Amino acid sequence: MTNEPIAVPENQVERHVIAAFRKVGASEPSLQAATRAMMHASRLGVDSHGVRLTQHYCRMLVGGRLNKNPRLTIDQRGPSSATVDGDDGLGHYAAYRAMELACELAQETGLAGVGVRRSSHLGAAGAYALAGAERGFIGFATTNTDSMVPLFGGAAAFHGTNPLAFAAPIPGQKPWLLDMATSSIPMNRVFLHQSLDKDLPTGVAADSSGVPVTDPHQAEMVLPLGGAEYGYKGAGLAGVATLLSAVLMGTTLDPDFIPMVGAQDIGTPRNMGHFVLAISPDHFAGRAVFESGMSRYVDSLRNAPARPGEQPMAPGDREWRQAELRSAQGIPLDPDTARFLNLSV
Amino acid sequence: MTNEPIAVPENQVERHVIAAFRKVGASEPSLQAATRAMMHASRLGVDSHGVRLTQHYCRMLVGGRLNKNPRLTIDQRGPSSATVDGDDGLGHYAAYRAMELACELAQETGLAGVGVRRSSHLGAAGAYALAGAERGFIGFATTNTDSMVPLFGGAAAFHGTNPLAFAAPIPGQKPWLLDMATSSIPMNRVFLHQSLDKDLPTGVAADSSGVPVTDPHQAEMVLPLGGAEYGYKGAGLAGVATLLSAVLMGTTLDPDFIPMVGAQDIGTPRNMGHFVLAISPDHFAGRAVFESGMSRYVDSLRNAPARPGEQPMAPGDREWRQAELRSAQGIPLDPDTARFLNLSV
Repeated sequence: MTNEPIAVPENQVERHVIAAFRKVGASEPSLQAATRAMMHASRLGVDSHGVRLTQHYCRMLVGGRLNKNPRLTIDQRGPSSATVDGDDGLGHYAAYRAMELACELAQETGLAGVGVRRSSHLGAAGAYALAGAERGFIGFATTNTDSMVPLFGGAAAFHGTNPLAFAAPIPGQKPWLLDMATSSIPMNRVFLHQSLDKDLPTGVAADSSGVPVTDPHQAEMVLPLGGAEYGYKGAGLAGVATLLSAVLMGTTLDPDFIPMVGAQDIGTPRNMGHFVLAISPDHFAGRAVFESGMSRYVDSLRNAPARPGEQPMAPGDREWRQAELRSAQGIPLDPDTARFLNLSV
Repeated sequence: MTNEPIAVPENQVERHVIAAFRKVGASEPSLQAATRAMMHASRLGVDSHGVRLTQHYCRMLVGGRLNKNPRLTIDQRGPSSATVDGDDGLGHYAAYRAMELACELAQETGLAGVGVRRSSHLGAAGAYALAGAERGFIGFATTNTDSMVPLFGGAAAFHGTNPLAFAAPIPGQKPWLLDMATSSIPMNRVFLHQSLDKDLPTGVAADSSGVPVTDPHQAEMVLPLGGAEYGYKGAGLAGVATLLSAVLMGTTLDPDFIPMVGAQDIGTPRNMGHFVLAISPDHFAGRAVFESGMSRYVDSLRNAPARPGEQPMAPGDREWRQAELRSAQGIPLDPDTARFLNLSV
């Protein structure tokens, strides 16, 4: 069964990802950041943004879209605001630096926002929100991406699947972590249903003219969160990502991106923008109040009355369970990725 | 037709709302803030949060839940962070003050957040995001509210309809304005379908045990945005409102509120929290870049290819059109509200 994924221990996967990046000449700090972000996604079960992207990033490093040796420059515009120029390197590098800086500034001022320009794909936005929570802050991260989602009532792709990611520390536990696309479903879900020949739920995908369809083979776009009836909410939230990442930063608007995948041009940088925010609980009602509230909130949430067969969870609970499982059983790699990483059986 | 709404010129409505508040002894600054927020909602067509609430607020001012003469106190915890103590007055008063302060701080630091404690219902959260945009900032406002929405897989109400509101200035135009509940639909939509005896869309409402229903007469709760299949997103976003408004501020969690409506107790303050944020475009890529990007973004959005009979709109476009219409034709008042405001024909 050559198409079955193989499970590989996570430290082995990590070593091979790093080796692949070194082979194409990526700088050590930029490849470490990209590896960290992809391993985050692979551990938590978000395989679409996991180590399978190594091959894509390596191709873009070789093609010239991505700068192998980016020098980040920081422009601090105020005590709580700064921009990071990513120098067209791997987006993960600039995005982690942005969150690190946001936390440093927020430690002094209570709250800080850092925008990123001249960046590229950053993987899972949740990685950067989480980096904030791991330092004790409420973290937020967003990016705009290339067009894949029509507007509410639209007949062509407009916004990207523009994620909004939030994380917050919980005393003695893994952080609360919400990393969501503002589309109803990821495009990968459509591909999965195509391969299974299984109908999609109503109101999550559309054909090439924007008409909602359930036949996965007709689906060309994914609809904004809220679906056929309330998709203006998802479209509005996608706009929040675009306002903060692109309009505020003067970077590329969603419809103007060179497509991440499938473009002829892999030599021109995409000038992608991101935005991160760190909020210090110390500077509002105080750390002790925040921590007891956080514990009480997630406890009441996890113990809320459930429908038969269901289990209410805090955002991140499912992903942290997956991480435990994969820590024990290894990370599943599709055959292409396993081959690229020299991990084929 | 005694049940038909009557249309009353907006300045006349405003005068009568102010008179009603004065009659029950509300302080001038607090009643002016509440009137401003309700008139915002009534002008923009958000009648659920419009002047119909005057009667409710007056009852709470008389009952003692709301302090007629609140003295706001500000605790500035950092250059970019502060809390406003609402002194149990009308929530609108504390919330407008919070956004005003956030803008003042953000003017200096680039970005600022202000939390509110010991507050109460603030009406439409969009009013405060808009107040930020009117001063030239990207504004964000949120609040948690009493339980009305089950968790994803939940069998009982847990979160409130917890709104997230964002606004941003557009050169020479009314601001971009997104004011959305994190539930699929407002509970008022259920009541409307009940009175029309008309089925609800699938996946937006549930019966008393959390099971999705389309019969409006069986609907007891509204489901989180994303509905029966993807409601974890709406539940997560509701959690963002709760984290920022309640956990960060040490105020009441959604399931612990004395209900806004229908509670026996109208004498005990509810200790509601809110959170607002102001982001200064001057402190990122600069005002000129932001303004040209904003104009280009909304232009491309409004001119995006549309499905037949549809018209993609920027968040707020629908509401600003409604405001123009109501400015010309008056604000529709239901008979109860018209009577309470001494505006019956």
